[in-house]
Amino acid sequence: MTHNAPGDLGHLASTGDTPPIAADRLVETATRILVASGLPDADARLVADCLVQADLWGHQSHGLLRLGWYVNRLRSGVMTPRTAPETVIDGGAVATIDGHDGVGQVLAAHAAREATARAARHGIGAVAVRNSNHFGMAAHFTRMAPPAGCIGILTTNSSPAMAPWGGRVKAVGSNPWSIAVPIGDERQMVLDISNTAVARGKIYLARNQGAEIPDGWAITAEGRPTRDPVEAIAGTILPMAAHKGYAISVMMDVLSGVLTGSGFGTAVAGPYQAERRSGSGHLYIALEIAAFMRVKEFTARMAELVAELKAVPSAEGAGEVLYPGEVEERTAARNLAEGVSLPGRTLDDLRTLAAELDVVGV
Amino acid sequence: MTHNAPGDLGHLASTGDTPPIAADRLVETATRILVASGLPDADARLVADCLVQADLWGHQSHGLLRLGWYVNRLRSGVMTPRTAPETVIDGGAVATIDGHDGVGQVLAAHAAREATARAARHGIGAVAVRNSNHFGMAAHFTRMAPPAGCIGILTTNSSPAMAPWGGRVKAVGSNPWSIAVPIGDERQMVLDISNTAVARGKIYLARNQGAEIPDGWAITAEGRPTRDPVEAIAGTILPMAAHKGYAISVMMDVLSGVLTGSGFGTAVAGPYQAERRSGSGHLYIALEIAAFMRVKEFTARMAELVAELKAVPSAEGAGEVLYPGEVEERTAARNLAEGVSLPGRTLDDLRTLAAELDVVGV
Repeated sequence: MTHNAPGDLGHLASTGDTPPIAADRLVETATRILVASGLPDADARLVADCLVQADLWGHQSHGLLRLGWYVNRLRSGVMTPRTAPETVIDGGAVATIDGHDGVGQVLAAHAAREATARAARHGIGAVAVRNSNHFGMAAHFTRMAPPAGCIGILTTNSSPAMAPWGGRVKAVGSNPWSIAVPIGDERQMVLDISNTAVARGKIYLARNQGAEIPDGWAITAEGRPTRDPVEAIAGTILPMAAHKGYAISVMMDVLSGVLTGSGFGTAVAGPYQAERRSGSGHLYIALEIAAFMRVKEFTARMAELVAELKAVPSAEGAGEVLYPGEVEERTAARNLAEGVSLPGRTLDDLRTLAAELDVVGV
Repeated sequence: MTHNAPGDLGHLASTGDTPPIAADRLVETATRILVASGLPDADARLVADCLVQADLWGHQSHGLLRLGWYVNRLRSGVMTPRTAPETVIDGGAVATIDGHDGVGQVLAAHAAREATARAARHGIGAVAVRNSNHFGMAAHFTRMAPPAGCIGILTTNSSPAMAPWGGRVKAVGSNPWSIAVPIGDERQMVLDISNTAVARGKIYLARNQGAEIPDGWAITAEGRPTRDPVEAIAGTILPMAAHKGYAISVMMDVLSGVLTGSGFGTAVAGPYQAERRSGSGHLYIALEIAAFMRVKEFTARMAELVAELKAVPSAEGAGEVLYPGEVEERTAARNLAEGVSLPGRTLDDLRTLAAELDVVGV
């Protein structure tokens, strides 16, 4: 069987979302599915937590929808269920870890712990990860840095998603990156973005709605700018912010793939390509705040910056100004209290997977 | 007298550029002007080199056009001509330097040397700079890292230039950042961007040409999206890539201002504000390539990535695909050989400054 594949965006056209389901129950089910697929208990729970957390944050494209992709990769053998990170270079403040095609989330969490531990000794730490896999949302791992007294910076590379600026063939990954910073009171300021102008799903949605797409999203197969979603689907997505997003994305590949000794460019495969090993790499940099100033002074300064941003008068039709990461924190608090409403297709797939693997579903 | 101020973009409407002038002659003149303004010889030459290099790269908005701004700041006393960086925290792999309102270029070059030296000992080095000044183009300083065997990453903060996403008042700086990476054969891949959707000058240009501006550049004073350059001038510039650029820019302020102990948010003044101290801060991170793999292997991998990008077929109407930084390298090579053609107004200002300070002009 095949689970959700890219381009197969049935959930966008589904008749509606499911009634709210408690996040704990989803984590339990996903954990059982992953254990049945060969992951050790703790690793299975970590991946399940990551996926459900993305749904809690309101980013369903990175949530349980992806569980089937991972299971398919474990079945085909391109992803190793028992992740065994090997430290191939240990240079004090820096280290390089070979993931040996293990689970991306497990390796990224390992890198977060290693980088923050090294930052605690040296003021800054960097951990390069090679031969990893897709790790879901980068913010899950940068958010591990503030409780360890650090700012966390994480980059990854991914399969080709867009044309280089001036080109007309997909050759540059969306290469997400994230930065997380403590504000105090357990709040964090968090950046977590990919470098494409738009998620491909939004172009399919525009097509289904018969709507135009804005300038700057896509080009035709010939490389002409287009507002026609049908032409865009046959063509290529553009980088965010034109040439700037192109340059950013290539740099994230340099840090994540070239420097780490992992795959880079078109050598990186997507998580939905069940038969290809990923080749994805990551770079985790942690800055220990106490190496620069007292943590309390730092968080007071962050709170001041946040207060200044939030005091800016709203644009017409907009709500209050939010700091980066605030919308996810609010959405997660609401979803934790009220339960997560999944796209119907995602819940169906989850139940099918549970049945196939003979574990208790949700 | 007042030199070019923002909003005063006479050079955009000038009847034409000057005949080509040898870069060396421009550097000599600018150096003499800065020495006459109180800078030590070596510092004056560094700043002059930086300014002329921006003109060589084709970024005239960051070139000699800005010399008058710096002279005005030295005259008013908000920028100190004799830069004396003080290392206030020395933490091995990391350091914090107080610039005491010295010259931004001198402090950024100092940070580049310090960060790469620390990276040579620890694999990674980070230098925070507080109480600095505008430093011109960040790429000038990240490009110092590859000859030292490093990848250079530099962030800075700057005066408010755009609204936060969802707001309608200027409160977030353009906060430029740069990454430079060796490709081999003395070539470098270089990212150097600010986070605004557009330089303000391009909106003035559209107004002068009676042209519409594209979606995503600016909002009106009420915070409505607009394509009318007149409304945009009365309103506010938007971040590049909408909410993503907002988040990136705030993060660059966190790294450059909050973490370094410098000014942040609206506390940072622009280089054209002759009566206000800058408060600008920077963060320089250097990654030693040899701590991750042999440098030759790294540059071979970079050359492979570049070849892959350049092999992508061109979009309709575009030339060959360029790697980040390639256009600047080509422009500089041409301008070095043929001479730099300056906006007429910039050359007039340079000659006026030389006359005022009683030094030999160009």
